[in-house]
Amino acid sequence: MNQGYSTVLFQIDTTQSASKQTQIREFFVTAILNRSLMPGDALPSTRVLSEQLDVSRNTVILAYQALTDSGYIEPKDRSGFIVSPEAPVGQIPETLSQPADDQVKWTEKFVQKPSKLNIISKPLNWREYDFPFNYGQADSTLFSHSEWRDCARQALGIRDFGITAGDFGYNDDPLLVDYICSHSLPRRGIQVKPSQILVTMGAQNALFLLIQLLVSNDKKVVIEDPFYPDLRELLKRHTSHIRTLPVDDDGVIIDDDIIASADMVIVTPSHQCPTTATLSRDRRKNLLALAQKHDVLVVEDDYEFEMNFIEAPSPALKSMDDSGHVIYVGSFSKSLFPGLRLGYLVASEQLIEEARSLRHLMLRHPPGQTQRTAAYFMALGHYDAQIKRLRRHFSNRRKILHENLDQENLLEETGAHFGGTSFWINGPEWLDARTLAEKAAEQSILIEPGHHFFNAETPPKNYFRMAYSSIHEDKITHGFEKLVDCVKSLKP
Amino acid sequence: MNQGYSTVLFQIDTTQSASKQTQIREFFVTAILNRSLMPGDALPSTRVLSEQLDVSRNTVILAYQALTDSGYIEPKDRSGFIVSPEAPVGQIPETLSQPADDQVKWTEKFVQKPSKLNIISKPLNWREYDFPFNYGQADSTLFSHSEWRDCARQALGIRDFGITAGDFGYNDDPLLVDYICSHSLPRRGIQVKPSQILVTMGAQNALFLLIQLLVSNDKKVVIEDPFYPDLRELLKRHTSHIRTLPVDDDGVIIDDDIIASADMVIVTPSHQCPTTATLSRDRRKNLLALAQKHDVLVVEDDYEFEMNFIEAPSPALKSMDDSGHVIYVGSFSKSLFPGLRLGYLVASEQLIEEARSLRHLMLRHPPGQTQRTAAYFMALGHYDAQIKRLRRHFSNRRKILHENLDQENLLEETGAHFGGTSFWINGPEWLDARTLAEKAAEQSILIEPGHHFFNAETPPKNYFRMAYSSIHEDKITHGFEKLVDCVKSLKP
Repeated sequence: MNQGYSTVLFQIDTTQSASKQTQIREFFVTAILNRSLMPGDALPSTRVLSEQLDVSRNTVILAYQALTDSGYIEPKDRSGFIVSPEAPVGQIPETLSQPADDQVKWTEKFVQKPSKLNIISKPLNWREYDFPFNYGQADSTLFSHSEWRDCARQALGIRDFGITAGDFGYNDDPLLVDYICSHSLPRRGIQVKPSQILVTMGAQNALFLLIQLLVSNDKKVVIEDPFYPDLRELLKRHTSHIRTLPVDDDGVIIDDDIIASADMVIVTPSHQCPTTATLSRDRRKNLLALAQKHDVLVVEDDYEFEMNFIEAPSPALKSMDDSGHVIYVGSFSKSLFPGLRLGYLVASEQLIEEARSLRHLMLRHPPGQTQRTAAYFMALGHYDAQIKRLRRHFSNRRKILHENLDQENLLEETGAHFGGTSFWINGPEWLDARTLAEKAAEQSILIEPGHHFFNAETPPKNYFRMAYSSIHEDKITHGFEKLVDCVKSLKP
Repeated sequence: MNQGYSTVLFQIDTTQSASKQTQIREFFVTAILNRSLMPGDALPSTRVLSEQLDVSRNTVILAYQALTDSGYIEPKDRSGFIVSPEAPVGQIPETLSQPADDQVKWTEKFVQKPSKLNIISKPLNWREYDFPFNYGQADSTLFSHSEWRDCARQALGIRDFGITAGDFGYNDDPLLVDYICSHSLPRRGIQVKPSQILVTMGAQNALFLLIQLLVSNDKKVVIEDPFYPDLRELLKRHTSHIRTLPVDDDGVIIDDDIIASADMVIVTPSHQCPTTATLSRDRRKNLLALAQKHDVLVVEDDYEFEMNFIEAPSPALKSMDDSGHVIYVGSFSKSLFPGLRLGYLVASEQLIEEARSLRHLMLRHPPGQTQRTAAYFMALGHYDAQIKRLRRHFSNRRKILHENLDQENLLEETGAHFGGTSFWINGPEWLDARTLAEKAAEQSILIEPGHHFFNAETPPKNYFRMAYSSIHEDKITHGFEKLVDCVKSLKP
């Protein structure tokens, strides 16, 4: 039996996000579980370890205290510590298999291969870029951390724990549903009962549920062009009857005949994705009249309505729907953060009942503690304060980027004047935005090429998306100027 | 303009889980957002409000302080507060729609109706029963709340926030994947690379992904009988070629011909669901040899292996697999809690790549903060301490229930002697367990009738499941005696 560690063979890694105290605890727990340290073995004294790791002695004392509290180690003699005789040990079976030599004929196994879909791939290392004009990530400097943490603490407290840790079955957290029903939706002019709301794993999950329930190969679906590629690709897996409608400054252009013969129409009326155009009131009325007359379902993806900062948002399409044909999809990814994975579906009870059952088979329900934390964040007013702060910053950022765009006639922006988190940019015809994105990346500038959004097999190449949701105000002008240099350098 | 509230028209609700301070904050936030209180309006003094609500003055002061911090109110004059002129206000559009009069012909819309599936419905009010022998809920009295909360605080801290709040794209939290790869799986004898692991929204989500990827109507699937009804019903939606294999005390009985002609076999080798029998070593070897010879995929649902408390668990089937035919499904629902919704899939990289893409379209990824909290809980050793505590309590509870069952020859238990969280009970032939469950519920006893688990159209009625994961040690004997009285009262 070894006598413990006189010197500890590890170093504090200052690049890690875990604190020094945590790293010390992790090291000893791992050593105890994998039996490098056995029950009864002595640990180095706090003085010795603090010198060796070059950390304060207090950090070591706190780490040892935590290890004592969780039963891994215990005090011995006057000032030493040993591994507790009661410490948990990892049960490692004698035979540890080698990684399998794959002999499966996988090509015959798959009934679908989603990896082959042509969807957006977002760079995860966007924080490493000096000028991140990327779309859809949260700017954590604008987020109310400490309030979120307070709400999480409350949601994880003993009072709520029994409920939020449990299997909700078919249900959601009533506090969250109540907030959506009585606060979020009325701001969009929508009045529904709680039984008409289903909480989902973000808007993506809501759309996935709808497609599985409502689209098979005999169904005709109409989408916008350009449009969100993930959803278009998903639809193509379910039906070959997809029609597209073009988009102008007033949003999607309604074609009466195409709508009349469809089973489902999917639209983004507040800010068209990706052009950010807002659907005009006349077109909304026409679309709803056609849907009602021909019994066509309309899916309204209202993915960033809270980001309207210049004017109050126009009421949702769903607020004008008096026949139940509009299915509304909401998201907290922009107003809170995308890693939260919370969104919701609003529709007739009959549809919600089926979506609830399918969600149950698919994943049960979004985690209880996540739902409850968000509910507290909203009920305590932090959500509204957060949106207000985002709007103020985004408005300022948008203004700066807009002024830059106005001065540069190589690049033209389109879209709504009410807000959003991005501009849709139309470059000169000779521009290939994919080449531009590569060249810009070399200058530490991140933009999103636009070809994926178009339905055509040979899509236009000169469009791209520039978001201002992750880039600091002070960097926009410099980043834009460098980007324009890149564009000019590509001119044939 | 009104002059604020001289009296506040609300009462502290002591039955609510939210604290008094929280209730006060929620009340004012709601009033400000819906404009019952306008900017500049005065709030009642802390003295007046504390008297009126019968709470300590300090509670009111803290609530006002928090409201000030978040910008809803501000101090005015010497000791008063007013609604801040900068306070966020709800934007309520002028037209608020009436709930729609549903005119959709829904019967023509659905391409599937999952609400019609014959699956388990778990009572959510189980905490109200004196003797909850229900299955699959966590006992929050056995959980390390404060350690979980510490880990959550760390995962929600500023250091981690930027990462855990972001869109992970196709990825998972590397800390969690690393822990599963280097700690959880080696205990089951499984050695894989991180790229062979996908984190899922519980085991249910892992199984759903597998079925969508690998099962269509030309595929032959073999399952156990009795078996988990949610999964069987889900399978029936994808293929009509389902064969079942009976189960005895050594687990599922392997039929060579049936396995040889199958595309996929789904098994629960550690603790068969619901009988809890452990699959014998000889049958495991035979199953794997057949799978390898005939290129059959084997799905191993290892849903509660940590709950083996009498002997070390036998190594997973996956640990004996050297050809890549076994797909392993793990879950944290039993060892942590079901509302967490975390599980994982372990398989060949080719399969994981497709499952990752499908998960991306379905829901993106399990929430980042949930993954990171669980990763810290594990890395800091709380997870092992937690399992140890659960095992100690469950072992004791199982022993008590076992002794009771042994003394009562009306009810016979089957299953593994190694642990688990439940007994599968075989009652006298004249017993209808559904009637028994109803009668027992009147006596505040909760059991789960077993008919759902059988594949036959007219399933045996005399089986039921009794779990000991949610009932306190002290209540088991009394609850069992009362249940036996119920059984006797039903004897024809």
